[in-house]
Amino acid sequence: MTDAPKKPAAPVDFYFDFSSPYGYFAAEKIDALAARHGRTVHWHPFLLGATFKVTGLGPLPGIPLKGAYSMHDIERSARFFGLPYRQPSTFPIPTQHAARAFLWLNDRSPEKARAFGLAAYRAYFVDDVNISDLGAVLDIAAGVGIDRDVLSAVLAGTEIKARLAAEVDLGLARGVFGSPFIIVDGEAFWGADRLPQVERWLAEGGF
Amino acid sequence: MTDAPKKPAAPVDFYFDFSSPYGYFAAEKIDALAARHGRTVHWHPFLLGATFKVTGLGPLPGIPLKGAYSMHDIERSARFFGLPYRQPSTFPIPTQHAARAFLWLNDRSPEKARAFGLAAYRAYFVDDVNISDLGAVLDIAAGVGIDRDVLSAVLAGTEIKARLAAEVDLGLARGVFGSPFIIVDGEAFWGADRLPQVERWLAEGGF
Repeated sequence: MTDAPKKPAAPVDFYFDFSSPYGYFAAEKIDALAARHGRTVHWHPFLLGATFKVTGLGPLPGIPLKGAYSMHDIERSARFFGLPYRQPSTFPIPTQHAARAFLWLNDRSPEKARAFGLAAYRAYFVDDVNISDLGAVLDIAAGVGIDRDVLSAVLAGTEIKARLAAEVDLGLARGVFGSPFIIVDGEAFWGADRLPQVERWLAEGGF
Repeated sequence: MTDAPKKPAAPVDFYFDFSSPYGYFAAEKIDALAARHGRTVHWHPFLLGATFKVTGLGPLPGIPLKGAYSMHDIERSARFFGLPYRQPSTFPIPTQHAARAFLWLNDRSPEKARAFGLAAYRAYFVDDVNISDLGAVLDIAAGVGIDRDVLSAVLAGTEIKARLAAEVDLGLARGVFGSPFIIVDGEAFWGADRLPQVERWLAEGGF
Protein backbone atom coordinates (compact mmCIF):
# COMPACT_ATOMS: atom_id res chain seq x y z
CA MET A 1 0.00 0.00 0.00
CA THR A 2 3.04 2.29 -0.17
CA ASP A 3 1.82 3.84 -3.42
CA ALA A 4 -1.74 4.48 -2.17
CA PRO A 5 -2.90 8.07 -2.63
CA LYS A 6 -2.22 10.34 0.34
CA LYS A 7 -5.21 10.61 2.63
CA PRO A 8 -6.37 14.00 3.87
CA ALA A 9 -4.27 15.10 6.83
CA ALA A 10 -6.80 14.34 9.56
CA PRO A 11 -5.56 14.68 13.15
CA VAL A 12 -4.07 11.61 14.80
CA ASP A 13 -6.19 10.47 17.77
CA PHE A 14 -4.18 9.88 20.93
CA TYR A 15 -5.87 8.23 23.93
CA PHE A 16 -4.05 8.20 27.27
CA ASP A 17 -4.61 7.61 30.97
CA PHE A 18 -2.66 9.90 33.31
CA SER A 19 -1.74 6.86 35.43
CA SER A 20 -0.11 5.08 32.46
CA PRO A 21 3.71 5.29 32.21
CA TYR A 22 3.62 4.14 28.60
CA GLY A 23 1.02 6.87 28.02
CA TYR A 24 3.50 9.37 29.43
CA PHE A 25 6.23 8.15 27.07
CA ALA A 26 3.90 8.49 24.08
CA ALA A 27 2.69 11.92 25.24
CA GLU A 28 6.28 13.16 25.13
CA LYS A 29 6.76 11.86 21.58
CA ILE A 30 3.47 11.92 19.67
CA ASP A 31 3.22 15.60 18.66
CA ALA A 32 6.69 15.74 17.13
CA LEU A 33 6.16 12.38 15.44
CA ALA A 34 2.89 13.51 13.87
CA ALA A 35 4.35 16.88 12.91
CA ARG A 36 7.11 15.15 10.93
CA HIS A 37 4.30 13.93 8.66
CA GLY A 38 2.26 17.12 8.56
CA ARG A 39 -0.25 15.93 11.13
CA THR A 40 -1.67 17.38 14.31
CA VAL A 41 -2.78 15.28 17.29
CA HIS A 42 -6.13 15.21 19.05
CA TRP A 43 -5.44 14.25 22.67
CA HIS A 44 -8.17 12.24 24.41
CA PRO A 45 -7.95 11.75 28.19
CA PHE A 46 -9.15 8.26 29.01
CA LEU A 47 -9.79 6.04 32.05
CA LEU A 48 -8.26 2.57 31.96
CA GLY A 49 -10.57 1.47 34.78
CA ALA A 50 -13.46 1.60 32.31
CA THR A 51 -11.64 -0.74 29.93
CA PHE A 52 -10.84 -3.24 32.71
CA LYS A 53 -14.58 -3.71 33.18
CA VAL A 54 -14.90 -4.66 29.49
CA THR A 55 -11.73 -6.70 29.01
CA GLY A 56 -11.70 -8.42 32.40
CA LEU A 57 -8.06 -7.37 32.74
CA GLY A 58 -6.63 -5.26 35.55
CA PRO A 59 -3.70 -3.01 36.48
CA LEU A 60 -0.26 -4.42 35.60
CA PRO A 61 1.32 -4.44 39.08
CA GLY A 62 -1.13 -7.03 40.40
CA ILE A 63 -0.44 -9.67 37.72
CA PRO A 64 1.96 -12.44 38.85
CA LEU A 65 5.27 -12.48 36.89
CA LYS A 66 4.01 -9.93 34.33
CA GLY A 67 3.60 -7.25 37.02
CA ALA A 68 7.17 -7.46 38.29
CA TYR A 69 8.50 -7.58 34.74
CA SER A 70 6.44 -4.56 33.75
CA MET A 71 7.70 -2.38 36.59
CA HIS A 72 11.23 -3.12 35.38
CA ASP A 73 10.31 -2.68 31.71
CA ILE A 74 8.81 0.75 32.40
CA GLU A 75 12.06 2.08 33.89
CA ARG A 76 14.15 0.54 31.10
CA SER A 77 11.76 1.83 28.42
CA ALA A 78 12.07 5.36 29.86
CA ARG A 79 15.84 5.14 29.37
CA PHE A 80 15.30 3.68 25.88
CA PHE A 81 13.10 6.68 25.01
CA GLY A 82 15.55 9.09 26.65
CA LEU A 83 12.94 10.34 29.11
CA PRO A 84 13.27 11.10 32.83
CA TYR A 85 11.30 8.70 35.02
CA ARG A 86 10.90 7.89 38.69
CA GLN A 87 8.49 5.15 39.75
CA PRO A 88 5.69 6.95 41.68
CA SER A 89 5.35 5.87 45.32
CA THR A 90 1.61 5.33 44.72
CA PHE A 91 0.80 3.44 41.50
CA PRO A 92 -1.58 3.14 39.83
CA ILE A 93 -3.92 5.96 40.88
CA PRO A 94 -7.41 7.22 39.91
CA THR A 95 -7.01 10.01 37.37
CA GLN A 96 -10.51 11.45 36.97
CA HIS A 97 -9.58 14.94 38.20
CA ALA A 98 -6.65 15.28 35.81
CA ALA A 99 -8.65 13.81 32.91
CA ARG A 100 -11.57 16.19 33.51
CA ALA A 101 -9.25 19.19 33.80
CA PHE A 102 -7.56 18.21 30.54
CA LEU A 103 -10.85 17.74 28.75
CA TRP A 104 -12.27 21.06 29.88
CA LEU A 105 -9.09 22.85 28.88
CA ASN A 106 -8.92 21.03 25.56
CA ASP A 107 -12.40 22.18 24.62
CA ARG A 108 -11.15 25.76 25.07
CA SER A 109 -7.47 25.70 24.13
CA PRO A 110 -5.68 22.54 22.96
CA GLU A 111 -2.37 24.31 23.54
CA LYS A 112 -3.14 25.01 27.20
CA ALA A 113 -4.49 21.49 27.65
CA ARG A 114 -1.27 20.08 26.15
CA ALA A 115 0.85 22.17 28.53
CA PHE A 116 -1.25 21.01 31.47
CA GLY A 117 -1.21 17.38 30.33
CA LEU A 118 2.57 17.21 29.98
CA ALA A 119 3.02 19.03 33.30
CA ALA A 120 0.68 16.56 35.03
CA TYR A 121 2.45 13.55 33.52
CA ARG A 122 5.86 14.91 34.54
CA ALA A 123 4.61 15.77 38.03
CA TYR A 124 3.46 12.17 38.52
CA PHE A 125 6.19 10.23 36.73
CA VAL A 126 9.21 12.42 37.44
CA ASP A 127 8.49 14.39 40.64
CA ASP A 128 6.30 11.79 42.41
CA VAL A 129 3.37 14.17 42.87
CA ASN A 130 0.19 12.16 43.51
CA ILE A 131 -2.07 13.66 40.84
CA SER A 132 -5.11 11.74 42.07
CA ASP A 133 -5.34 14.64 44.55
CA LEU A 134 -7.58 17.50 43.38
CA GLY A 135 -5.34 20.12 44.98
CA ALA A 136 -2.32 18.77 43.10
CA VAL A 137 -4.22 18.98 39.81
CA LEU A 138 -5.22 22.59 40.51
CA ASP A 139 -1.63 23.47 41.46
CA ILE A 140 -0.28 21.97 38.24
CA ALA A 141 -2.92 23.85 36.22
CA ALA A 142 -2.06 27.10 38.00
CA GLY A 143 1.60 26.48 37.13
CA VAL A 144 0.77 26.62 33.42
CA GLY A 145 -1.37 29.75 33.75
CA ILE A 146 -4.86 28.34 34.38
CA ASP A 147 -7.09 30.21 36.85
CA ARG A 148 -7.19 27.95 39.90
CA ASP A 149 -10.59 29.12 41.16
CA VAL A 150 -12.31 28.81 37.79
CA LEU A 151 -10.96 25.27 37.27
CA SER A 152 -11.84 24.33 40.84
CA ALA A 153 -15.48 25.35 40.23
CA VAL A 154 -15.57 23.45 36.93
CA LEU A 155 -14.24 20.24 38.49
CA ALA A 156 -16.80 20.47 41.31
CA GLY A 157 -19.66 20.50 38.80
CA THR A 158 -21.56 17.62 37.23
CA GLU A 159 -21.24 18.77 33.62
CA ILE A 160 -17.54 17.89 33.24
CA LYS A 161 -18.12 14.50 34.86
CA ALA A 162 -20.72 13.67 32.21
CA ARG A 163 -18.40 15.06 29.54
CA LEU A 164 -15.55 12.71 30.54
CA ALA A 165 -17.89 9.73 30.89
CA ALA A 166 -19.11 10.36 27.33
CA GLU A 167 -15.53 10.69 26.05
CA VAL A 168 -14.58 7.37 27.66
CA ASP A 169 -17.68 5.66 26.24
CA LEU A 170 -16.80 6.98 22.79
CA GLY A 171 -13.28 5.59 23.16
CA LEU A 172 -14.58 2.17 24.19
CA ALA A 173 -16.92 2.22 21.19
CA ARG A 174 -13.86 2.85 18.99
CA GLY A 175 -12.12 -0.17 20.52
CA VAL A 176 -9.77 1.65 22.89
CA PHE A 177 -8.64 -0.79 25.60
CA GLY A 178 -5.24 0.50 26.70
CA SER A 179 -2.91 3.48 27.04
CA PRO A 180 -1.44 4.84 24.90
CA PHE A 181 -3.87 4.04 22.10
CA ILE A 182 -3.35 5.83 18.81
CA ILE A 183 -5.69 5.89 15.81
CA VAL A 184 -4.40 7.04 12.42
CA ASP A 185 -7.00 7.25 9.66
CA GLY A 186 -8.99 4.47 11.33
CA GLU A 187 -5.94 2.27 11.98
CA ALA A 188 -5.46 1.47 15.70
CA PHE A 189 -2.10 1.12 17.47
CA TRP A 190 -1.75 0.13 21.12
CA GLY A 191 1.36 0.84 23.16
CA ALA A 192 4.35 3.16 23.13
CA ASP A 193 6.22 0.31 21.44
CA ARG A 194 4.02 0.76 18.37
CA LEU A 195 5.28 4.31 17.73
CA PRO A 196 7.66 3.01 15.01
CA GLN A 197 4.65 1.42 13.28
CA VAL A 198 2.69 4.68 13.66
CA GLU A 199 5.60 6.57 12.12
CA ARG A 200 5.80 4.21 9.14
CA TRP A 201 2.03 4.27 8.69
CA LEU A 202 2.10 8.07 8.56
CA ALA A 203 5.11 8.11 6.23
CA GLU A 204 3.74 5.57 3.76
CA GLY A 205 -0.03 5.96 4.16
CA GLY A 206 -0.22 2.36 5.38
CA PHE A 207 1.99 -0.67 4.92
CA MET B 1 25.99 1.89 31.78
CA THR B 2 27.31 2.29 28.23
CA ASP B 3 30.91 2.28 29.46
CA ALA B 4 30.51 -0.80 31.66
CA PRO B 5 33.03 -3.55 30.93
CA LYS B 6 31.94 -6.06 28.30
CA LYS B 7 30.42 -9.16 29.87
CA PRO B 8 31.45 -12.62 28.65
CA ALA B 9 29.55 -13.54 25.52
CA ALA B 10 27.04 -15.94 27.09
CA PRO B 11 24.27 -17.21 24.81
CA VAL B 12 21.04 -15.20 24.62
CA ASP B 13 18.11 -17.21 26.03
CA PHE B 14 15.08 -17.25 23.74
CA TYR B 15 11.78 -18.68 25.03
CA PHE B 16 8.97 -19.28 22.55
CA ASP B 17 5.66 -21.11 22.18
CA PHE B 18 4.98 -22.61 18.76
CA SER B 19 1.44 -21.18 18.91
CA SER B 20 2.69 -17.60 19.37
CA PRO B 21 2.80 -15.40 16.25
CA TYR B 22 5.05 -12.88 17.99
CA GLY B 23 7.28 -15.84 18.91
CA TYR B 24 7.44 -16.72 15.21
CA PHE B 25 8.47 -13.16 14.31
CA ALA B 26 11.24 -13.22 16.94
CA ALA B 27 12.37 -16.70 15.87
CA GLU B 28 12.97 -15.35 12.35
CA LYS B 29 15.06 -12.46 13.69
CA ILE B 30 16.84 -13.46 16.90
CA ASP B 31 19.82 -15.44 15.57
CA ALA B 32 20.94 -12.73 13.14
CA LEU B 33 20.36 -10.06 15.77
CA ALA B 34 22.50 -11.90 18.34
CA ALA B 35 25.17 -12.69 15.74
CA ARG B 36 25.58 -8.99 14.99
CA HIS B 37 26.87 -8.70 18.55
CA GLY B 38 28.94 -11.87 18.65
CA ARG B 39 26.32 -13.90 20.49
CA THR B 40 24.68 -17.23 19.94
CA VAL B 41 21.11 -18.04 20.98
CA HIS B 42 19.84 -20.84 23.21
CA TRP B 43 16.30 -21.64 22.04
CA HIS B 44 13.88 -22.83 24.73
CA PRO B 45 10.52 -24.28 23.66
CA PHE B 46 7.88 -23.18 26.15
CA LEU B 47 4.17 -23.67 26.85
CA LEU B 48 2.11 -20.53 27.36
CA GLY B 49 -0.65 -22.58 28.95
CA ALA B 50 1.59 -23.11 31.98
CA THR B 51 2.02 -19.36 32.39
CA PHE B 52 -1.72 -18.70 32.16
CA LYS B 53 -2.16 -20.82 35.30
CA VAL B 54 0.30 -18.55 37.14
CA THR B 55 -0.69 -15.16 35.74
CA GLY B 56 -4.44 -15.73 35.56
CA LEU B 57 -4.32 -14.47 31.98
CA GLY B 58 -5.48 -16.38 28.88
CA PRO B 59 -5.08 -16.56 25.12
CA LEU B 60 -5.38 -13.22 23.32
CA PRO B 61 -8.31 -14.04 20.99
CA GLY B 62 -10.74 -14.45 23.88
CA ILE B 63 -10.14 -11.04 25.45
CA PRO B 64 -12.82 -8.45 24.56
CA LEU B 65 -11.47 -5.49 22.51
CA LYS B 66 -7.82 -6.57 23.00
CA GLY B 67 -8.40 -9.87 21.19
CA ALA B 68 -9.76 -8.30 18.03
CA TYR B 69 -7.04 -5.66 18.07
CA SER B 70 -4.35 -8.29 18.51
CA MET B 71 -5.48 -10.37 15.54
CA HIS B 72 -5.14 -7.23 13.42
CA ASP B 73 -1.85 -6.20 15.05
CA ILE B 74 -0.31 -9.61 14.33
CA GLU B 75 -0.94 -9.31 10.59
CA ARG B 76 0.30 -5.73 10.50
CA SER B 77 3.37 -6.58 12.58
CA ALA B 78 4.25 -9.38 10.16
CA ARG B 79 4.28 -6.79 7.36
CA PHE B 80 6.29 -4.43 9.57
CA PHE B 81 8.89 -7.18 10.13
CA GLY B 82 8.82 -8.10 6.43
CA LEU B 83 7.71 -11.67 7.15
CA PRO B 84 5.13 -13.83 5.39
CA TYR B 85 2.07 -14.56 7.53
CA ARG B 86 -1.34 -16.13 7.17
CA GLN B 87 -3.67 -16.33 10.15
CA PRO B 88 -4.02 -20.06 10.94
CA SER B 89 -7.57 -21.39 10.68
CA THR B 90 -7.19 -22.93 14.16
CA PHE B 91 -5.64 -20.58 16.72
CA PRO B 92 -4.30 -20.94 19.32
CA ILE B 93 -3.38 -24.63 19.47
CA PRO B 94 -1.64 -26.98 21.94
CA THR B 95 2.02 -27.26 21.01
CA GLN B 96 3.42 -30.02 23.22
CA HIS B 97 4.39 -32.32 20.35
CA ALA B 98 6.34 -29.63 18.52
CA ALA B 99 7.96 -28.39 21.75
CA ARG B 100 9.04 -31.92 22.75
CA ALA B 101 10.41 -32.62 19.28
CA PHE B 102 12.36 -29.37 19.39
CA LEU B 103 13.75 -30.07 22.84
CA TRP B 104 14.84 -33.60 21.97
CA LEU B 105 16.52 -32.39 18.79
CA ASN B 106 18.13 -29.45 20.57
CA ASP B 107 19.77 -31.74 23.11
CA ARG B 108 21.44 -33.52 20.18
CA SER B 109 21.93 -30.86 17.50
CA PRO B 110 20.92 -27.22 18.00
CA GLU B 111 21.30 -26.71 14.23
CA LYS B 112 18.79 -29.45 13.41
CA ALA B 113 16.47 -28.20 16.14
CA ARG B 114 16.67 -24.70 14.68
CA ALA B 115 15.82 -25.97 11.21
CA PHE B 116 12.88 -27.92 12.59
CA GLY B 117 11.69 -24.99 14.72
CA LEU B 118 11.64 -22.53 11.84
CA ALA B 119 9.99 -25.09 9.57
CA ALA B 120 7.29 -25.76 12.18
CA TYR B 121 6.64 -22.04 12.71
CA ARG B 122 6.41 -21.44 8.94
CA ALA B 123 4.16 -24.47 8.49
CA TYR B 124 1.73 -23.10 11.08
CA PHE B 125 1.87 -19.37 10.38
CA VAL B 126 2.41 -19.35 6.61
CA ASP B 127 1.02 -22.65 5.25
CA ASP B 128 -1.81 -23.15 7.79
CA VAL B 129 -0.63 -26.62 8.84
CA ASN B 130 -2.12 -27.51 12.23
CA ILE B 131 1.04 -28.45 14.10
CA SER B 132 -0.89 -29.62 17.16
CA ASP B 133 -1.19 -32.84 15.16
CA LEU B 134 1.57 -35.37 15.88
CA GLY B 135 1.66 -36.55 12.27
CA ALA B 136 2.21 -32.99 11.06
CA VAL B 137 5.12 -32.58 13.49
CA LEU B 138 6.71 -35.81 12.27
CA ASP B 139 6.25 -34.75 8.64
CA ILE B 140 7.91 -31.40 9.28
CA ALA B 141 10.80 -33.11 11.07
CA ALA B 142 11.20 -35.57 8.21
CA GLY B 143 11.31 -32.61 5.83
CA VAL B 144 14.46 -31.33 7.53
CA GLY B 145 16.14 -34.72 7.62
CA ILE B 146 15.02 -36.16 10.95
CA ASP B 147 14.25 -39.89 11.07
CA ARG B 148 10.47 -40.08 11.37
CA ASP B 149 10.34 -43.42 13.18
CA VAL B 150 12.98 -42.52 15.73
CA LEU B 151 11.26 -39.23 16.57
CA SER B 152 7.87 -40.94 16.68
CA ALA B 153 9.18 -43.40 19.28
CA VAL B 154 10.74 -40.58 21.32
CA LEU B 155 7.52 -38.55 21.38
CA ALA B 156 5.53 -41.62 22.49
CA GLY B 157 7.76 -42.04 25.55
CA THR B 158 7.47 -40.52 29.01
CA GLU B 159 11.03 -39.23 29.28
CA ILE B 160 10.62 -36.36 26.82
CA LYS B 161 7.36 -35.34 28.51
CA ALA B 162 9.16 -34.98 31.84
CA ARG B 163 12.00 -33.17 30.07
CA LEU B 164 9.64 -30.53 28.62
CA ALA B 165 7.76 -30.15 31.93
CA ALA B 166 11.09 -29.48 33.67
CA GLU B 167 12.10 -26.95 30.99
CA VAL B 168 8.79 -25.10 31.39
CA ASP B 169 9.12 -25.08 35.19
CA LEU B 170 12.63 -23.69 34.86
CA GLY B 171 11.32 -20.94 32.59
CA LEU B 172 8.56 -20.04 35.03
CA ALA B 173 11.15 -19.91 37.83
CA ARG B 174 13.14 -17.43 35.71
CA GLY B 175 10.03 -15.26 35.33
CA VAL B 176 9.04 -16.24 31.80
CA PHE B 177 5.35 -15.42 31.29
CA GLY B 178 4.99 -14.79 27.56
CA SER B 179 6.31 -15.51 24.08
CA PRO B 180 8.75 -14.42 22.86
CA PHE B 181 10.70 -13.94 26.08
CA ILE B 182 14.38 -13.12 25.75
CA ILE B 183 16.98 -13.02 28.51
CA VAL B 184 20.33 -11.29 27.92
CA ASP B 185 22.85 -11.56 30.77
CA GLY B 186 19.98 -11.78 33.27
CA GLU B 187 17.98 -8.92 31.69
CA ALA B 188 14.49 -9.99 30.58
CA PHE B 189 12.63 -8.71 27.51
CA TRP B 190 9.09 -9.73 26.60
CA GLY B 191 7.66 -9.36 23.12
CA ALA B 192 8.86 -9.08 19.55
CA ASP B 193 8.44 -5.32 19.98
CA ARG B 194 11.33 -5.38 22.47
CA LEU B 195 13.84 -6.56 19.84
CA PRO B 196 15.15 -2.99 19.39
CA GLN B 197 15.80 -2.86 23.15
CA VAL B 198 17.51 -6.27 22.99
CA GLU B 199 19.68 -5.00 20.15
CA ARG B 200 20.69 -1.89 22.07
CA TRP B 201 21.34 -3.91 25.23
CA LEU B 202 23.66 -6.21 23.31
CA ALA B 203 25.41 -3.32 21.56
CA GLU B 204 25.97 -1.25 24.70
CA GLY B 205 26.11 -3.91 27.43
CA GLY B 206 23.04 -2.34 29.03
CA PHE B 207 21.49 1.15 28.91
